[in-house]
Amino acid sequence: MTKEELYQNILRKRSFLCVGLDTDIRKIPEHLLRDDDPVFAFNKAIIDATADICVAYKPNLAFYESMGVKGWIAFEKTVKYIKENYPDQFVIADAKRGDIGNTSAMYARTFFEELDIDAVTVAPYMGEDSVTPFLGYEGKWVILLALTSNKGSQDFQLMEDKSGERLFERVLRKSREWADDNRMMYVVGATRGRAFEDIRRVAPHHFLLVPGVGAQGGSLEEVCKYGMNKSCGLIVNSSRGIIYADHTERFAQAARAAAQEVRSQMGETLNHPSLTT
Amino acid sequence: MTKEELYQNILRKRSFLCVGLDTDIRKIPEHLLRDDDPVFAFNKAIIDATADICVAYKPNLAFYESMGVKGWIAFEKTVKYIKENYPDQFVIADAKRGDIGNTSAMYARTFFEELDIDAVTVAPYMGEDSVTPFLGYEGKWVILLALTSNKGSQDFQLMEDKSGERLFERVLRKSREWADDNRMMYVVGATRGRAFEDIRRVAPHHFLLVPGVGAQGGSLEEVCKYGMNKSCGLIVNSSRGIIYADHTERFAQAARAAAQEVRSQMGETLNHPSLTT
Repeated sequence: MTKEELYQNILRKRSFLCVGLDTDIRKIPEHLLRDDDPVFAFNKAIIDATADICVAYKPNLAFYESMGVKGWIAFEKTVKYIKENYPDQFVIADAKRGDIGNTSAMYARTFFEELDIDAVTVAPYMGEDSVTPFLGYEGKWVILLALTSNKGSQDFQLMEDKSGERLFERVLRKSREWADDNRMMYVVGATRGRAFEDIRRVAPHHFLLVPGVGAQGGSLEEVCKYGMNKSCGLIVNSSRGIIYADHTERFAQAARAAAQEVRSQMGETLNHPSLTT
Repeated sequence: MTKEELYQNILRKRSFLCVGLDTDIRKIPEHLLRDDDPVFAFNKAIIDATADICVAYKPNLAFYESMGVKGWIAFEKTVKYIKENYPDQFVIADAKRGDIGNTSAMYARTFFEELDIDAVTVAPYMGEDSVTPFLGYEGKWVILLALTSNKGSQDFQLMEDKSGERLFERVLRKSREWADDNRMMYVVGATRGRAFEDIRRVAPHHFLLVPGVGAQGGSLEEVCKYGMNKSCGLIVNSSRGIIYADHTERFAQAARAAAQEVRSQMGETLNHPSLTT
């Protein structure tokens, strides 16, 4: 999917919401456990209930890998289901991979060629040759960790060099030499508030994937105020707040209501005159 | 496995070799492709041919995940086979994971509880709460990326703060607050030579997992000279140099010969008087 196609989907749906499919078999409604594949059954219901309200889905690989082979089957079925039934959805494999070149190349082939996923989250610690193997695929994206939403992000990401540049800013600056805003996005936690201004100084045109709204306490209003650019430039993820909005047989309707609630807040910001329409 | 048990295995086998099971179905001998599970058949033959010469095996998750469900089956069978037949082997899942707490906890459960793997490689970029969920398991290990062997390691790992501390040194220093040398090891690329002296200044007693000998051009002699401590403190990995030593039906014997060659070099260094025996 191109950057322009993603932006047009956002304008059409009045939404830049990404639903995080962090599906934990211990948290899904009991009646689904009778299904052959409870995790896929849960995802399918959530997807059908939210596809017209969001522009992206982000299955977190850990939740599937933790179930071993069964989990991989559920993951592949989920991706295939979205691709076949909702081709306008931007599918992000939240994998946070990052390894030496030949290994990263294996991951790239898996996610982009075999599963036709649109984007993969990648960790920058190992540098250029751990990231570039993901960049050789037309219409596919790397979403590089920059400034994450968790407490531990302060341990290293805010490290400052002699010139005052912080690690996350170096990640932004260096990675811009590897790919532009048509192939690369960045993860920036919603809990970062004003830091979005610093991010936009280095990466004014890139899309940012923003986790941490809701359960992790980030403010959508602040994210939009400091992070939005003229082609929106934001994909805001919510996982637990939407998929676990209810634990009864009404879980899918509840997820839809929760997603609509977020979209209604987004809709207003999308009226902003600075946006090019 | 405890640090002392690992050291005793090293002394008994006169080896601190880890065989990297980076098994690529496009590189294994043709006759194995007739097998129901060629990747497992290859791994089993390599393991049976090398288990008395090495102290650890390191399957790289990417090579298995790139095969989807089939790959996960081969990975789980491989781990199970080692555990059941060679219980003195230290099994490392080279996964380079690192995510927010609840996600890292999912990974920890998969690798340590469900698969009974001894150690997992973890990326430090997201900081303390992305690493600590892996530290709550008795006899299980985190192997944290510190200074890797690839070219891109220079992009961020060598970043220097105002006090002159480099990122990889900060990773060593900070992570020592999270766990000691009985629960934590570090990845240090064999291509680093003298940098091992800097590493040992910050982490004198820890075991280091050292990739990059062989195919990537690292020198075993230098690694031992600058990196060895009084309980060896090194696990040196070789992958391609051993498992792809030969591509005919003799691949397993060739792998054994290649492993023996590395061990013979290691044996000499293990006579060093500084080692406590």
